[in-house]
Amino acid sequence: MNNLADIALAIDRADSVLICGHVLPDGDSLGSMLALGLALEKLGKKVTMGGADRVPAIYGFLPGVDRYVEGAPPAGEYDTFIVLDCSVPERLGKGYQEMLSSGVVVINLDHHAGSKSFGTYRYIDPAAAAVGEIIFDLFNLMKVDISLESAICLYTAIVTDTGSFQYENMQPDTHRRVAELLELGVPAAQINQELYEEKPKAVLDLLGLALGTLSLSPCGRVCWMTVTRKLLNISGAEDEHTEGLVNYARSIRGVQVGILFRETEGGDFKISFRSKGTVDVNRLSAMFGGGGHPRASGCVMSGNLADIQEKIVSAAVLAAGGINN
Amino acid sequence: MNNLADIALAIDRADSVLICGHVLPDGDSLGSMLALGLALEKLGKKVTMGGADRVPAIYGFLPGVDRYVEGAPPAGEYDTFIVLDCSVPERLGKGYQEMLSSGVVVINLDHHAGSKSFGTYRYIDPAAAAVGEIIFDLFNLMKVDISLESAICLYTAIVTDTGSFQYENMQPDTHRRVAELLELGVPAAQINQELYEEKPKAVLDLLGLALGTLSLSPCGRVCWMTVTRKLLNISGAEDEHTEGLVNYARSIRGVQVGILFRETEGGDFKISFRSKGTVDVNRLSAMFGGGGHPRASGCVMSGNLADIQEKIVSAAVLAAGGINN
Repeated sequence: MNNLADIALAIDRADSVLICGHVLPDGDSLGSMLALGLALEKLGKKVTMGGADRVPAIYGFLPGVDRYVEGAPPAGEYDTFIVLDCSVPERLGKGYQEMLSSGVVVINLDHHAGSKSFGTYRYIDPAAAAVGEIIFDLFNLMKVDISLESAICLYTAIVTDTGSFQYENMQPDTHRRVAELLELGVPAAQINQELYEEKPKAVLDLLGLALGTLSLSPCGRVCWMTVTRKLLNISGAEDEHTEGLVNYARSIRGVQVGILFRETEGGDFKISFRSKGTVDVNRLSAMFGGGGHPRASGCVMSGNLADIQEKIVSAAVLAAGGINN
Repeated sequence: MNNLADIALAIDRADSVLICGHVLPDGDSLGSMLALGLALEKLGKKVTMGGADRVPAIYGFLPGVDRYVEGAPPAGEYDTFIVLDCSVPERLGKGYQEMLSSGVVVINLDHHAGSKSFGTYRYIDPAAAAVGEIIFDLFNLMKVDISLESAICLYTAIVTDTGSFQYENMQPDTHRRVAELLELGVPAAQINQELYEEKPKAVLDLLGLALGTLSLSPCGRVCWMTVTRKLLNISGAEDEHTEGLVNYARSIRGVQVGILFRETEGGDFKISFRSKGTVDVNRLSAMFGGGGHPRASGCVMSGNLADIQEKIVSAAVLAAGGINN
């Protein structure tokens, strides 16, 4: 483990930098990558940014997002590889994971509590609500003037990874950093509109249909929704649009565990768990070969939906202490 | 118009204080009232808090909420009447409005841009995202140590009136005040859970049914939902649970105006407008005898639903510049 000053020095020495986040990129991995990449470019470095998976449409407004190269890392003579928001090498995705053993200097910046330590330089701060906060502090340490473009990217990183400043990962200093970003001119309301108010109608149609499947266990502690291929077809929504649906199941009074059953293209079922209270859904999903975090986890199962739901819901009710209710 | 120091002095002189917010109390009016009331009590003043309407269930967790007296103001010898978050005297509600002419010192603290100036002392700051921010500054000016209870109330005031820090009313200093509140021990994640993750199942059932009525104008700029008494009955939801539904209509890509048609108990239709772009929905609702703000307004109409929708949607499409699409 290094301190942030070591990281700043290592970045200072770099000339040609490759930066990536994780597979299925989110607001924090993309925002942190673009903020850092745009800033390093202004410092005269050659910067390449990309990732194995495509950028979700809602992040299309991010400054510099057109610089993101999708797929394998572009051929190039890199001396430094910066990895953001990746708890394990596997999250780097195809092509990027191989870069770890290519002999370049690897700088690993992350905030996941269970992060696996890898890289030449490693800075992992589980107290940071977003990697965007780490980049913010790094900029201050490096005495980088934060451009409006980078500030917009950092705001997006923080607002998305904190659920609009609502999650447990919020620290007083998170709000203070955001205050400074707003002072740099970040149009916060406009960004929130881009993120949360520009949905394809199919997403809301899917939400309506999915809410129609809401089921509550007799004890009231477990609530689940089901999205079949049929529901996706009727609504015209895509798999990525199911993200966040599970939160609706959790948002009901008294519910301890919210579950989403989603049929995959291959006919399996992807099961997402969200815990509101003290139930460790990481342990719950591990019973079915899955994993994740205590509050958010998932697993994949094959077979008959009714059988799968029976097994999963029974286990969830048990975990939520509701067996005899 | 007074400055905050005048207000602090006027409060300092008070012995027996009545505090109220507005009718249909929300997080800002309740949180500000309770934060202030609990603090003044600690300063040795006799404090009565209340309002014409009942407290919505989601605010049941607020410290001191059991002190809220619903209905007419309790009989008492008040020397000072503090009014919070009320843009016009009518918003005080029955019983409280009459207090304005009772001869007591009236202190009016508000943040509405179009606030009508009334009261012996008046402090109206449209730059404040919430009245909770004004109370926070007042506490600092009065050198009041903010108790955890008051801090929880102020956090709730700010988080609810800024749509979780997302609205245009956010200022850098709003985030800084929130940072200080978190440092006082405010359990932010827990409060957000109370506010947004403890809904009656009927609310989500209603949302699902309402989303099934989503309609988009051919030009794509106007989107509306319809909640009839039948939908409310099927879901078991109550009128207050329709709050926020209109935001779903607005959240679709390309939509400029979101509309909710809600059938009232009396068989009329309450129409809510939300603007995302430049459309002034205050003007739009004024065409039908209603009013509000440029971004959020409403009106009430009687008659046949299809006729009403035809009229309202046509006007909205015209206002959104979509007439020929």
